[in-house]
Amino acid sequence: MARTCYEARVAAVLAARQPKSFVTSREPELAIELGGIPGDRHYGLFRKADSRQSFYPRGTLIANRRQISIVSAEECDLIAGAMGIPEVRPEWLGANLLLEGYPQLTSLPVGSRLLFPEACGLIGEGENPPCKGPGKEIAEALQLPDLAGRFVKAAKHRRGIVCSVEREGRIREGDTVRIFLP
Amino acid sequence: MARTCYEARVAAVLAARQPKSFVTSREPELAIELGGIPGDRHYGLFRKADSRQSFYPRGTLIANRRQISIVSAEECDLIAGAMGIPEVRPEWLGANLLLEGYPQLTSLPVGSRLLFPEACGLIGEGENPPCKGPGKEIAEALQLPDLAGRFVKAAKHRRGIVCSVEREGRIREGDTVRIFLP
Repeated sequence: MARTCYEARVAAVLAARQPKSFVTSREPELAIELGGIPGDRHYGLFRKADSRQSFYPRGTLIANRRQISIVSAEECDLIAGAMGIPEVRPEWLGANLLLEGYPQLTSLPVGSRLLFPEACGLIGEGENPPCKGPGKEIAEALQLPDLAGRFVKAAKHRRGIVCSVEREGRIREGDTVRIFLP
Repeated sequence: MARTCYEARVAAVLAARQPKSFVTSREPELAIELGGIPGDRHYGLFRKADSRQSFYPRGTLIANRRQISIVSAEECDLIAGAMGIPEVRPEWLGANLLLEGYPQLTSLPVGSRLLFPEACGLIGEGENPPCKGPGKEIAEALQLPDLAGRFVKAAKHRRGIVCSVEREGRIREGDTVRIFLP
């Protein structure tokens, strides 16, 4: 079966290894397991249900399909433009991957595949709706408190996607990722 | 957020516990874990990629999203009618659940939720395309060899769905399942 395929570049790989913060830091490469990125804040086969899974009582253990979060450089630029600041760094959004060359990342349909050169395969689980945390982080980083409230509106439909792991492997900065629509 | 919700009845629960056959047998209830139904043929956090996952080499270990298969009584009746036989049993299709009261099961969108009274929650992973195995099984059960070749066409878009486990729990015959569209 022929499938539509796009290519993009992995401009940065990042992980959240500090227990009390969602902010990520750049690393040269990541080992990806079925549960996500070992040692990362969102690693695990299970996660606790929150307001996004309103059909389960809050805190219920459910399958973790929000293991890895991805943003596009082009959408980060749009968010920055809407907030009136020079840049929005993937670190501030808690992103695990920054892609270049696939601008419309946030609209990637659920069930899309992202395939990396060293075996790793991810399943797109849909848009990551913006919450208030990154706005506070941006305001603090730039020491401009007024920015905090502007993030959610500026990032709507631009904040990237969450993914779950389909095939274990490695992801490196500079990789070319192939993106297949469902 | 308001979501569209339907209800259906669990008319049978079944498992495939014989190593060399996909045929299932009825049981009063099933314990469901993150990997599926312990002891069932399709249990596991991983499965081997096959022709349905053509972007991975055949046999590659990937996340198992085909843990539980579900058919509807109404669609089984349609298959039976198209094959000219009195009934198509869920056993012959290797189904784990037979639902009554949600006739259009096969078209249930990917990402739908099926929630059972005793905690268990499943995620719809989409249509299960018919293959040749059940036709052979039906032909053998009815001792009518000519039937074997008729199944795939008769079952197209009527063969139900596959699901993955989102929340562990139990499923019993007679349960009412709530079905939420994405």
